[in-house]
Amino acid sequence: MQDIHIGLIGAGYMGKAHTIAYKTVRSIFPTSRNPVCACIATSSEEGAARSARELGWNSSTGDWRTLVNDPAIDAIVVATPPATHKDIVLAALALGKPVFCEKPLGFSAAESLQLAQAAEDAGVANMVGYNYIRTPASQLARQIIASGEIGDIIHVAAEHVEDYLHDPRAPASWRTREATATRAGALADVGSHLLNLALRLGGPVDSLVADMNTVHARRDGPHGMEAVDNDDQGNVMLRFASGALGALTFSRVAAGRKMGYTYRITGTKGAIAFDQENQNELWLYDASRPAQRQGFQRLLMGPAHPDYLAFSQGAGHGTGYNEQIVIEARDFLQAIAGGEPVWPTFRDGYEVDRLVDAALRSVQERSWITVR
Amino acid sequence: MQDIHIGLIGAGYMGKAHTIAYKTVRSIFPTSRNPVCACIATSSEEGAARSARELGWNSSTGDWRTLVNDPAIDAIVVATPPATHKDIVLAALALGKPVFCEKPLGFSAAESLQLAQAAEDAGVANMVGYNYIRTPASQLARQIIASGEIGDIIHVAAEHVEDYLHDPRAPASWRTREATATRAGALADVGSHLLNLALRLGGPVDSLVADMNTVHARRDGPHGMEAVDNDDQGNVMLRFASGALGALTFSRVAAGRKMGYTYRITGTKGAIAFDQENQNELWLYDASRPAQRQGFQRLLMGPAHPDYLAFSQGAGHGTGYNEQIVIEARDFLQAIAGGEPVWPTFRDGYEVDRLVDAALRSVQERSWITVR
Amino acid sequence: MQDIHIGLIGAGYMGKAHTIAYKTVRSIFPTSRNPVCACIATSSEEGAARSARELGWNSSTGDWRTLVNDPAIDAIVVATPPATHKDIVLAALALGKPVFCEKPLGFSAAESLQLAQAAEDAGVANMVGYNYIRTPASQLARQIIASGEIGDIIHVAAEHVEDYLHDPRAPASWRTREATATRAGALADVGSHLLNLALRLGGPVDSLVADMNTVHARRDGPHGMEAVDNDDQGNVMLRFASGALGALTFSRVAAGRKMGYTYRITGTKGAIAFDQENQNELWLYDASRPAQRQGFQRLLMGPAHPDYLAFSQGAGHGTGYNEQIVIEARDFLQAIAGGEPVWPTFRDGYEVDRLVDAALRSVQERSWITVR
Amino acid sequence: MQDIHIGLIGAGYMGKAHTIAYKTVRSIFPTSRNPVCACIATSSEEGAARSARELGWNSSTGDWRTLVNDPAIDAIVVATPPATHKDIVLAALALGKPVFCEKPLGFSAAESLQLAQAAEDAGVANMVGYNYIRTPASQLARQIIASGEIGDIIHVAAEHVEDYLHDPRAPASWRTREATATRAGALADVGSHLLNLALRLGGPVDSLVADMNTVHARRDGPHGMEAVDNDDQGNVMLRFASGALGALTFSRVAAGRKMGYTYRITGTKGAIAFDQENQNELWLYDASRPAQRQGFQRLLMGPAHPDYLAFSQGAGHGTGYNEQIVIEARDFLQAIAGGEPVWPTFRDGYEVDRLVDAALRSVQERSWITVR
Repeated sequence: MQDIHIGLIGAGYMGKAHTIAYKTVRSIFPTSRNPVCACIATSSEEGAARSARELGWNSSTGDWRTLVNDPAIDAIVVATPPATHKDIVLAALALGKPVFCEKPLGFSAAESLQLAQAAEDAGVANMVGYNYIRTPASQLARQIIASGEIGDIIHVAAEHVEDYLHDPRAPASWRTREATATRAGALADVGSHLLNLALRLGGPVDSLVADMNTVHARRDGPHGMEAVDNDDQGNVMLRFASGALGALTFSRVAAGRKMGYTYRITGTKGAIAFDQENQNELWLYDASRPAQRQGFQRLLMGPAHPDYLAFSQGAGHGTGYNEQIVIEARDFLQAIAGGEPVWPTFRDGYEVDRLVDAALRSVQERSWITVR
Repeated sequence: MQDIHIGLIGAGYMGKAHTIAYKTVRSIFPTSRNPVCACIATSSEEGAARSARELGWNSSTGDWRTLVNDPAIDAIVVATPPATHKDIVLAALALGKPVFCEKPLGFSAAESLQLAQAAEDAGVANMVGYNYIRTPASQLARQIIASGEIGDIIHVAAEHVEDYLHDPRAPASWRTREATATRAGALADVGSHLLNLALRLGGPVDSLVADMNTVHARRDGPHGMEAVDNDDQGNVMLRFASGALGALTFSRVAAGRKMGYTYRITGTKGAIAFDQENQNELWLYDASRPAQRQGFQRLLMGPAHPDYLAFSQGAGHGTGYNEQIVIEARDFLQAIAGGEPVWPTFRDGYEVDRLVDAALRSVQERSWITVR
Repeated sequence: MQDIHIGLIGAGYMGKAHTIAYKTVRSIFPTSRNPVCACIATSSEEGAARSARELGWNSSTGDWRTLVNDPAIDAIVVATPPATHKDIVLAALALGKPVFCEKPLGFSAAESLQLAQAAEDAGVANMVGYNYIRTPASQLARQIIASGEIGDIIHVAAEHVEDYLHDPRAPASWRTREATATRAGALADVGSHLLNLALRLGGPVDSLVADMNTVHARRDGPHGMEAVDNDDQGNVMLRFASGALGALTFSRVAAGRKMGYTYRITGTKGAIAFDQENQNELWLYDASRPAQRQGFQRLLMGPAHPDYLAFSQGAGHGTGYNEQIVIEARDFLQAIAGGEPVWPTFRDGYEVDRLVDAALRSVQERSWITVR
Repeated sequence: MQDIHIGLIGAGYMGKAHTIAYKTVRSIFPTSRNPVCACIATSSEEGAARSARELGWNSSTGDWRTLVNDPAIDAIVVATPPATHKDIVLAALALGKPVFCEKPLGFSAAESLQLAQAAEDAGVANMVGYNYIRTPASQLARQIIASGEIGDIIHVAAEHVEDYLHDPRAPASWRTREATATRAGALADVGSHLLNLALRLGGPVDSLVADMNTVHARRDGPHGMEAVDNDDQGNVMLRFASGALGALTFSRVAAGRKMGYTYRITGTKGAIAFDQENQNELWLYDASRPAQRQGFQRLLMGPAHPDYLAFSQGAGHGTGYNEQIVIEARDFLQAIAGGEPVWPTFRDGYEVDRLVDAALRSVQERSWITVR
């Protein structure tokens, strides 16, 4: 099997997850390439060397340009904050290297569009890291909807709510500063997953109205209390092109919800429901059953469901967070090998960021925004 | 114990529930009056007589005016469609008789205000039938919020979604016609419960924006297919006077949800969550616990919780729908005996109907509506 | 409708529940008789008078014999501790009066047999108060099993575990003393419900082996610490006549379980599962579904299920503990009116008590006991 | 970091899981050795070569002896059926190589004892693959019990029930034949996990009584229908040395349960409950809370819980089946590097197998068996 040398930029939360994924993906799925954890870049030589040692990368650098420019590196994985994506991605694309970039893609919708166009011009594999939608359960949800099993969609209710900044004593960070995280806070961080979900499972969006606020306006920073630049939570109502209604809630201050990525999608023939905190079950309601046998059914993921068998032959044995990233890695390798775009491409990432921008504008103008 | 002669108008779904309540309330709670199921009125003499026989009322009439005017009738319970409330309520109030009226109170907010003012002028007990908020669990929710246990409320996410009209073959009825049910469909029927909940648990509302639609525009009627005059489902975003955000969804076409009256209320110190389909449990999250012991706790209702002990000495033994109506009956008797208004009065019912009207206007104008 | 004058003995926990039931049953179900709450007896004139006032009975007595002998009393409901059942029941039967008796029926299996034979000799309606099996969900479970929908039963796993005596500071009471409660403690109190369930849903039993112990051997009594005479918890393994296996657990010290009456019954074609703490849902598994659509389905009780519609027209609205007792009252009235035995008769109560006796013997002999 | 060359025997279900584990463990946990997937053995050269290619092992062999004897192989992982364990394990130990062996350890308790003694004589690292007990949640359960947080254990209720052989058309396999799988069927396969759990969380066992049966006595084999040699399901009652009671159920025919490894452990101060189908949550009940705030609390695993942070920084993000095996690999590497036995050793595996033997004997003799 042909090796493919991966260069990873970023050694935080997601950097580790991508490491695990590339270490195992070829043992789990039948990939056509054998990924080699070749080089890792972080913001300092020492840090990068330590990360390489701890995570198991063959080499390291304190300058992402070195990594990107290294001709021995075949493909780039970007796992850094949004403000840094543009330069890295454009440099990699300029060299014709495939790029996987964490979400949200750009610092703004305009920037995302620029990256999407650059990727399309370069004609190389490009993907954005919307991982939650890739669980076996959410893939099954997509299948069920696409097959018409629950009829025409009439309502999408979804949330992505967590509480990582619920505590007012949680310090300011790159996530709370516009300069690093964008003007959208929870909206960009978790809301983007939610909007991606809405597009993926509900279809194109015609218009939206949003509301959001910052619950803790100031947080402790390295130089004392500093302003929080972006939102802690918000709600969005959608009108889909299909006419269906959508109701979304996102939050980083939702006390008690740790991974509250949930949806209930109602169709004319049934409904599905999901909660990422129990990511191995999808609930299905078939309205055609007789009244005495109606009710949501708990489908516990197993070998008969999408992308499960490769992880385990036993139903209910369960996959976890890191395995979503393995599926991403499999898809990225496939996009590279197959020469065909694999969802979600940068273009798809731009579609999400358009909605993020529209939501920000809706709040500013306190009105509905047409997005098509 | 002094008898109080109850006159009930309406022998449908709610008429039966009120019958059960008045038959037992004095055996369950220490009431100061002994309710006597004195007279029941429906739209025909024969029907009323049959209902009296089946439900156990001492007498019956096919004309509600006879019942209201009968000097032997001490208090009136109105369990008929909204379009009929005004005349009955005003007639009863004119005679100085206490009135319990099913929700929504009026055919419009203006009418509700008229009824509320009439009740206040008459100075007699008056209540509206918002029953779901009266379970032990939802009373406990109110206590927890009021005590500050979960801090300041920052977000209210709630739904009242059912599927009683999900099937397009379900026929037209008084609920789908403006003339009998009002211009608001699911919004008035279940949405009013939801708005009442928002006011009760979230506090006063400053502004809202709503969206709704009719999924099945025509239904089978007695004379062939007829138009459905009002909404099947919708979403509302609220801004509370406190600054908290609210996100509401209501529906009569939410496939699979039979009694989907749910809420998750987030505060600065914790959160509560509830689902009426499991009405005997309230979930409480206390953010002050150490990280390794955080998590929603399932409070299964028991004798230590509001209005439970009278029904059962055993925790977890469970109360059901009809017992919400018993609690209403207890409160109504108490309002009569005590001479003090007991929530929710007609004035409270008007506050809900104001929001219903604002939601309708928001949809029409496709904009936020300020309600204070 | 013909009146039937009920005499109730006992005004505790169950006395109140039976009161509520007889006050409403004829408004809920189409009964052929109109029950009148005629007379209540407790152990003192004053207490009985107070109970009559509080619960709403027409008369009262401090001597149950007066009640039983009163020719105006048509039927007897016995809601007193087990040690008192025999005399009351025999007296009532001797007068040819129908008797409903709380569980467990007798102080021993021998005594239960005596009462069953007396009832059969008298030829009058007789029932035992196994209420939990009467929820709509458990009636549905019975239907599903009886219809063959889940095939031949191969395993019955069930529990009835509560924690009402978990706290070692909970005082001694009639429940902890052999003289009043029998030699079986949790075994008789909750274990009898469990054994009744096993017989009802699993069928006749061939043999059993039991283990049990007393966790808190002494409890505070009126004269200082006193010995607890019977078991706090135990396990039973069953062999059904069908060859199926059974595994039962009962407890009054199961910390955290308030109404832990649960079962999972596995058949050759599927399975059902139930937890009384969510008494309005039954979980059904149909093994014939394709692999990708397998999973337990949550049947939320509604009008299409047994004995639900009379309580509510809306699915998911929910019934509670007291409504089980209403169903019992309906059945008892039907047994009286119809002249046909309605399950569970005293004979059925004896069948349970036989198993209780066998379990006690199994513990003593530390061996399997054949019961057929 | 020093390399350690792993030799894996078996390329089935568990072989793949161990591959994934050794590929990633050093990127996830700070291990002192860098495992190299050096050689894989299966029963044929061709099969082994294919597995090496597919799973990513450096070399392969069709003869496990070649692998074991290869001086370049530092440690052995045995993932083959029970009947083959003895020869492999003894050969490896004879060469002083550390051995990780899948469960159950031996073909009989006697054989397990022989292997345990051999391991102890060799003085090398040795472990048995009881993986389910290693989830963060079950490790937390162990911590909670050991700390006394729920007081003295009074009852252990546990199950390991699956349905992989529920369908009578499922063919005979090595699992159903005594020659390959032992005389214990579900008892050895899933029951051993259960008994291991009982020992780990409940402590030493004094006596037990078991019952079991074979639901489908014949299954389709390569030469037509053949007899099933061992049990499909069973129940066990335990008496722990502490005096606590235990009730266990195991099955491979439990329709609908895919990974029904559950327990509820009750102590004098509280209780814990767990269901492997939702392996990221542990339920904790603290009996000391006030009555109005009592209830099981859902602890969703996060960085504050055992062995979670290495997998994800986000609470609720979730770990899955394969990550249990990663934890095993970490522990095995640590046992090798540290020179200290890490639970569960072969000795611990023998303790489980002793209970398996006792259960078989209990069924044969239809009596309680004392095991201490």
